Amino acid sequence: MPVNQTADIRTRVGANFGAIYTGPLAQLDDYKLEMPALKRTVRGKLFIKQFLGLSGMQISMNKLPAGAAVPFYHQHKENEEAYIFVGGSGEMQIDGEVFAVEEGTIVRISPAGSRTLRNNSDSDLYYICVQAKDGSLQSETLEDGIKSDAPVSWPT
Amino acid sequence: MPVNQTADIRTRVGANFGAIYTGPLAQLDDYKLEMPALKRTVRGKLFIKQFLGLSGMQISMNKLPAGAAVPFYHQHKENEEAYIFVGGSGEMQIDGEVFAVEEGTIVRISPAGSRTLRNNSDSDLYYICVQAKDGSLQSETLEDGIKSDAPVSWPT
Repeated sequence: MPVNQTADIRTRVGANFGAIYTGPLAQLDDYKLEMPALKRTVRGKLFIKQFLGLSGMQISMNKLPAGAAVPFYHQHKENEEAYIFVGGSGEMQIDGEVFAVEEGTIVRISPAGSRTLRNNSDSDLYYICVQAKDGSLQSETLEDGIKSDAPVSWPT
Repeated sequence: MPVNQTADIRTRVGANFGAIYTGPLAQLDDYKLEMPALKRTVRGKLFIKQFLGLSGMQISMNKLPAGAAVPFYHQHKENEEAYIFVGGSGEMQIDGEVFAVEEGTIVRISPAGSRTLRNNSDSDLYYICVQAKDGSLQSETLEDGIKSDAPVSWPT
């Protein structure tokens, strides 16, 4: 049964973190997203920022069924997007350029890129889309980390 | 054969995008990462910002083998992290709180959260880690998108 994006999927909240469980990727089309501006209800797309309290990025978890396609091109105002493909195969189109994508393909798109996506295969396509403000990352990964010297302890 | 993070995995570069192919998730441990500051060589972790030209986020693709654990706690200076688990199961520990993670679990961690991760299962654990500057997202997803009215056209 499809559930709205408002169904609570939070599993844990701490002072410095939040965690959710969306279910297996194969069940992502249980989620439906009402998009009144587009006069559409989208299945298989779940935005998770609201559940996690994300402040530097938005993330969507996506399942595009075999044979399905995003029915429009879109650009962005100020956000960079990264598409991380984690299962299946299909095609992306950016500024009129078409190329194959599959598990292990990752694509960065600047705000101005006009993009769309289709699954022209016989299997479902799974991808994660992340949005962050273009040009906003200031501190590099390894330099941003602060390693502790405390030994790691786990419950047995 | 393990390859360094400097091996070029770019597949395509356009004016408004970049694309890479990292190979199937199961082969992520082909990549090795030299970490002189930690006096370690890490297998199964690939940072992709440099290949894609990402400017608002850093992303790493990760495979943590069955029985393996991250051997230290770490915090961040200014970046928020999101861990997106896409296969297998294990445990996260944040500020001393331990909880199970598996395919479909997504965790947000504020810079101050002291975090580590282990794979205490019999299968490999796969996850994607995204860093973005804490508090930097200003434009919300749907409002940031600009939909085109042009009909979508694909080559046959």
